[in-house]
Amino acid sequence: MTTSSEKPSRPRLDLTADVVTLTRQLMDINSVSLEERAIADAVEQELTAYDHLVVERRGNAVVARTDLGRRERVVIAGHLDTVPVNGNFPSRLDEATGILHGLGACDMKSGDAVILKLAATLEKPNRDVTYVFYDAEEIEAVHNGLGKLAASEPDLLAGDFAILMEPSNAGVEAGCQGTLRVEVRTTGERSHSARAWRGVNAIHKAGEVLRRLEAYEPRKPVIDGLEYHEGLNAVFVSGGVAGNVIPDECVVTVNYRFAPDRSEEEALDYVRGFFEGYDITVTDSSPGALPGLDRPAAKAFVDAVGGEVGPKFGWTDVARFTVLGIPAVNYGPGDPMFAHKADEHVRISEITSCEQALRDWLSA
Amino acid sequence: MTTSSEKPSRPRLDLTADVVTLTRQLMDINSVSLEERAIADAVEQELTAYDHLVVERRGNAVVARTDLGRRERVVIAGHLDTVPVNGNFPSRLDEATGILHGLGACDMKSGDAVILKLAATLEKPNRDVTYVFYDAEEIEAVHNGLGKLAASEPDLLAGDFAILMEPSNAGVEAGCQGTLRVEVRTTGERSHSARAWRGVNAIHKAGEVLRRLEAYEPRKPVIDGLEYHEGLNAVFVSGGVAGNVIPDECVVTVNYRFAPDRSEEEALDYVRGFFEGYDITVTDSSPGALPGLDRPAAKAFVDAVGGEVGPKFGWTDVARFTVLGIPAVNYGPGDPMFAHKADEHVRISEITSCEQALRDWLSA
Repeated sequence: MTTSSEKPSRPRLDLTADVVTLTRQLMDINSVSLEERAIADAVEQELTAYDHLVVERRGNAVVARTDLGRRERVVIAGHLDTVPVNGNFPSRLDEATGILHGLGACDMKSGDAVILKLAATLEKPNRDVTYVFYDAEEIEAVHNGLGKLAASEPDLLAGDFAILMEPSNAGVEAGCQGTLRVEVRTTGERSHSARAWRGVNAIHKAGEVLRRLEAYEPRKPVIDGLEYHEGLNAVFVSGGVAGNVIPDECVVTVNYRFAPDRSEEEALDYVRGFFEGYDITVTDSSPGALPGLDRPAAKAFVDAVGGEVGPKFGWTDVARFTVLGIPAVNYGPGDPMFAHKADEHVRISEITSCEQALRDWLSA
Repeated sequence: MTTSSEKPSRPRLDLTADVVTLTRQLMDINSVSLEERAIADAVEQELTAYDHLVVERRGNAVVARTDLGRRERVVIAGHLDTVPVNGNFPSRLDEATGILHGLGACDMKSGDAVILKLAATLEKPNRDVTYVFYDAEEIEAVHNGLGKLAASEPDLLAGDFAILMEPSNAGVEAGCQGTLRVEVRTTGERSHSARAWRGVNAIHKAGEVLRRLEAYEPRKPVIDGLEYHEGLNAVFVSGGVAGNVIPDECVVTVNYRFAPDRSEEEALDYVRGFFEGYDITVTDSSPGALPGLDRPAAKAFVDAVGGEVGPKFGWTDVARFTVLGIPAVNYGPGDPMFAHKADEHVRISEITSCEQALRDWLSA
């Protein structure tokens, strides 16, 4: 016998709720990268209840499709994972200001909520729609759920145009910067720290690596009228053997965000030159995506939702659609400046305006 | 029924073997700090077999005493733990060169073997002897087995003179440098690494900390005719949140080795001044010990074993005996320059010469 108390730990997700409530429900399910099982279970289970959707699950990715035989198919996608908790879980709604605070508010549980709400309520959209929810966007590319689908079952992602609901202030952001991660390694020789002059301190040698990073001046190329903004940053540093041993290795992990006029190879050449004299190991690389605003499907969407088009600084999975030959843009609620920050938040008016604009476009 | 195969994993330790074989047996029992149970069990069990010794166990420390009512009592001590394995386990004897290689060769399984051999064979020494084997010397002072004995049962360590068998090239090394560990912390503000200009990179800020360390010039004061040699080194560095997050904290752990003319307080003042502008947290502090060669018991021992007296660079537990009011020196086989290094080794001639010199002094 099944009773309501049988699965007390099942996350609460109610697709009949309004899109802001739905955003909070998604935010309150912890889904730090590689821990997306609970949220994917909830999304899959709720969508399966709708007869107008064909739902498929791959790992912790969920794909739901209409199959109305429309002339055009649009893919609308969002990732379910977040960066680590930073004193900002669970969600907190400030009703006075209309601002929703907490981890995932803009990156990107609000975008996910819009997609879920459209999937549940648009029984007969004017274009066929493939709704995609996936895992592991916030970590190394090798784990990326969308990347795995693109590699193993590209037909599941087929379409004429794709919208990625990454935060873009409820406006259209085109293209995206690429991202490269390398380990910069210094080596030395161990000795007892009481006789340090017999060893070589690898951590001290990393001082020059950090000094170069501190002096770095970002490149800001203009492409299709959009100004990009590069970045070169240490994201991890580690070294040390024991409290009384001169360390013989230190590793600085560096993340280079490069504008889409540079290929992955050019980006790596630049980083190798920047750290000349140091041992470099590539751990992660993803290409950028050119704005692509000259493509007809992109133009049509931009005309429909209106507003000014801006450049996308953060790497997003629009680059994966570009590789599959599908024009794609970023369009979602929230200011990306607050993504990954302790004070992450989103204006609830942007959540509802994104939902309305997409609903209008898919219902016209 | 007990059979020889009942405890196949018991380490082999045979006190009737020669002192070099005994050194190898001790080296081949893995005893990285906090993992000394097996070696302490073996030492306790073997010594308990001798009627001329009263053996006591405290945690992983073992104390064996003669009780002959002699006018003078000497304490001979060694630690049983080692730094982490570094591709140098187990022992390897090069018979052609007479050099024994491997972890603990000089720091300080060879010294331990000398103590064990004397304990087993000197039934009626001319002075009462307290043989002390203890744990956790290579890590933070709070774990130190000798420190715990000194705090809880100082009577167990009572004596007129103490010899610590830390490596000193089979010569007498007097005094020791103090050691202070601090964490130097930089802070910043997290943001997405694609929009790094919205955050503050704490790892980049640590570059200045490492730059100062690289430029450090060691002080080399002369005390009682002995030249000491200070050192200031990063022994750990860590920072980072995620591969796409600008890190908001970086911690550099620094070890200051200071000559015994500086107190712990003076050492800390120096380090605070050196890292002015940075947040400093003390994690470990132990005082140095002045040479103390003016004390009669120290003079008598030095005269008996002969040779030139040198300064001790490394912190050793002579400082604990100094605090208890017991004059103490370092005297043991092996070159301390090779302690904590991958190529740690000891000349077997130094092991046998130390054993002989102590045996002669205690038998005269």
